[in-house]
Amino acid sequence: MSEFYAHPTAIVETARIGAGTRIWAYAHVMNNVTIGSNCNIGDHCFVESGVIVGNNVTIKNGNMLFDGVELEEGVFVGPHVFFTNDLYPRSPRLEQCKYRYESSDWLFKTKVCRGASLGAGAVIVSNNTIGEFAMVGAGCVVTHDIPPYALVVGNPARQIGWVCQCGLRLKEDGQKAFCPSCGRQYQVIDGRVSPV
Amino acid sequence: MSEFYAHPTAIVETARIGAGTRIWAYAHVMNNVTIGSNCNIGDHCFVESGVIVGNNVTIKNGNMLFDGVELEEGVFVGPHVFFTNDLYPRSPRLEQCKYRYESSDWLFKTKVCRGASLGAGAVIVSNNTIGEFAMVGAGCVVTHDIPPYALVVGNPARQIGWVCQCGLRLKEDGQKAFCPSCGRQYQVIDGRVSPV
Amino acid sequence: MSEFYAHPTAIVETARIGAGTRIWAYAHVMNNVTIGSNCNIGDHCFVESGVIVGNNVTIKNGNMLFDGVELEEGVFVGPHVFFTNDLYPRSPRLEQCKYRYESSDWLFKTKVCRGASLGAGAVIVSNNTIGEFAMVGAGCVVTHDIPPYALVVGNPARQIGWVCQCGLRLKEDGQKAFCPSCGRQYQVIDGRVSPV
Repeated sequence: MSEFYAHPTAIVETARIGAGTRIWAYAHVMNNVTIGSNCNIGDHCFVESGVIVGNNVTIKNGNMLFDGVELEEGVFVGPHVFFTNDLYPRSPRLEQCKYRYESSDWLFKTKVCRGASLGAGAVIVSNNTIGEFAMVGAGCVVTHDIPPYALVVGNPARQIGWVCQCGLRLKEDGQKAFCPSCGRQYQVIDGRVSPV
Repeated sequence: MSEFYAHPTAIVETARIGAGTRIWAYAHVMNNVTIGSNCNIGDHCFVESGVIVGNNVTIKNGNMLFDGVELEEGVFVGPHVFFTNDLYPRSPRLEQCKYRYESSDWLFKTKVCRGASLGAGAVIVSNNTIGEFAMVGAGCVVTHDIPPYALVVGNPARQIGWVCQCGLRLKEDGQKAFCPSCGRQYQVIDGRVSPV
Repeated sequence: MSEFYAHPTAIVETARIGAGTRIWAYAHVMNNVTIGSNCNIGDHCFVESGVIVGNNVTIKNGNMLFDGVELEEGVFVGPHVFFTNDLYPRSPRLEQCKYRYESSDWLFKTKVCRGASLGAGAVIVSNNTIGEFAMVGAGCVVTHDIPPYALVVGNPARQIGWVCQCGLRLKEDGQKAFCPSCGRQYQVIDGRVSPV
């Protein structure tokens, strides 16, 4: 099988992990999880059955990825980002709510697209998609879909600019935008950014 | 004694745990803690001496329950909710503050009443009570008491509606309210909701 | 060497830890970390290489201290405070961003000065300094420097008052301020507080 590294204190219950991926101290990866190659999963992470993680993903310490979360290639998850999968959570052990947890209709998904970044302590309310290369600021609460390349901050999340694939802020010039650091060029059409 | 399950990597230092309760990987439950039956305590949780937890409570991963916290029956605590017990915290090791920590006057309590839910990453400032069946949104900062059945979001918490015992939002009709999902009926009197 | 205590489940990879310091369950302290004497580091903490911690510091459970973080003497870090060290984080494994992570220019520092307190779940955006004896409220997002003795709350952080070295709120009286609890006297000049 593939060659991945797991710290001696980590619990890894799936074999579907790509080559070069490293899983650090006190992390717990359940069965029925798929993780790509060359990823880094920090200390004290929990990855629940059903989660899908692409290649080259960086998951910082203390993250809890629940069933329904999918991270595409190259995503960055800062320390202690909060994923959710239930819009109206109750203890399923409570008599009044049991009917809601008899099927999986309560479960909503979260998709984080290629190259996007989630800042430390961000809260991602489920049933939303983070567009590719978007950047969610530290402590931000995401309650709706985030467009590709958007930089969002605050509670609830509001957009304050655009970011490059390399992560730095774009400079806008009418219908064009560019990265002052790496030089990549973009177009801005109908409030959406895409590479030229 | 009662039959509860603890993961081999969990540390459990109390025997006051009810039947059917499960405690998962890397969790630490200190002595002088009381936990009811049929509860679920997720990975990486910490439960400090003095905490009281009722029956049928679901505590998701990464929660830290400090002395002074009481969770009644059927409460749901989402991942990484932040409980506190000191309104003006300082390092007790600091010379200037030692006098404040010589008694336990600094310690304020938090009570979460029957059936209430706390969303992922919510912050619960101590000396407050979360009313029964209330729902605190993900990332919400609670700085005052929350009425029963209230749905609150934001920082600081503000109320945006009412929820049913089953967790879904109530529809209001004058002094009445009902749940479109399970059909439960409520009355709305003086800005408080209660079951009919 | 010095006499510190580490819980049997803790991983401690540095010897630069002062006498009387205690490190609790499932905590991980990397090499090239310096920690003073008489500190307390709670369960599930992670302390990365490069971190510096003074004497008499209290670090509550679940904290992740990353390279670039310095805590001076007597600091209080509440549960699950979020430190960061990258203003525009990307997965360094992503082809488009690798150039940014070839040097350490991406790394920004955070300094928390003597006696300051950081509340539960606070987010500290890097490249900022928390002034001595300042107090950051629970769930607060710090995006700029915080003056000494300031009490700040909200997202983003805004100042709502001043606090004493002992942690309680100061009463202001023109250019003077005092602590109703311990009696310490302060002066308020040009919007800055300092002890008399």
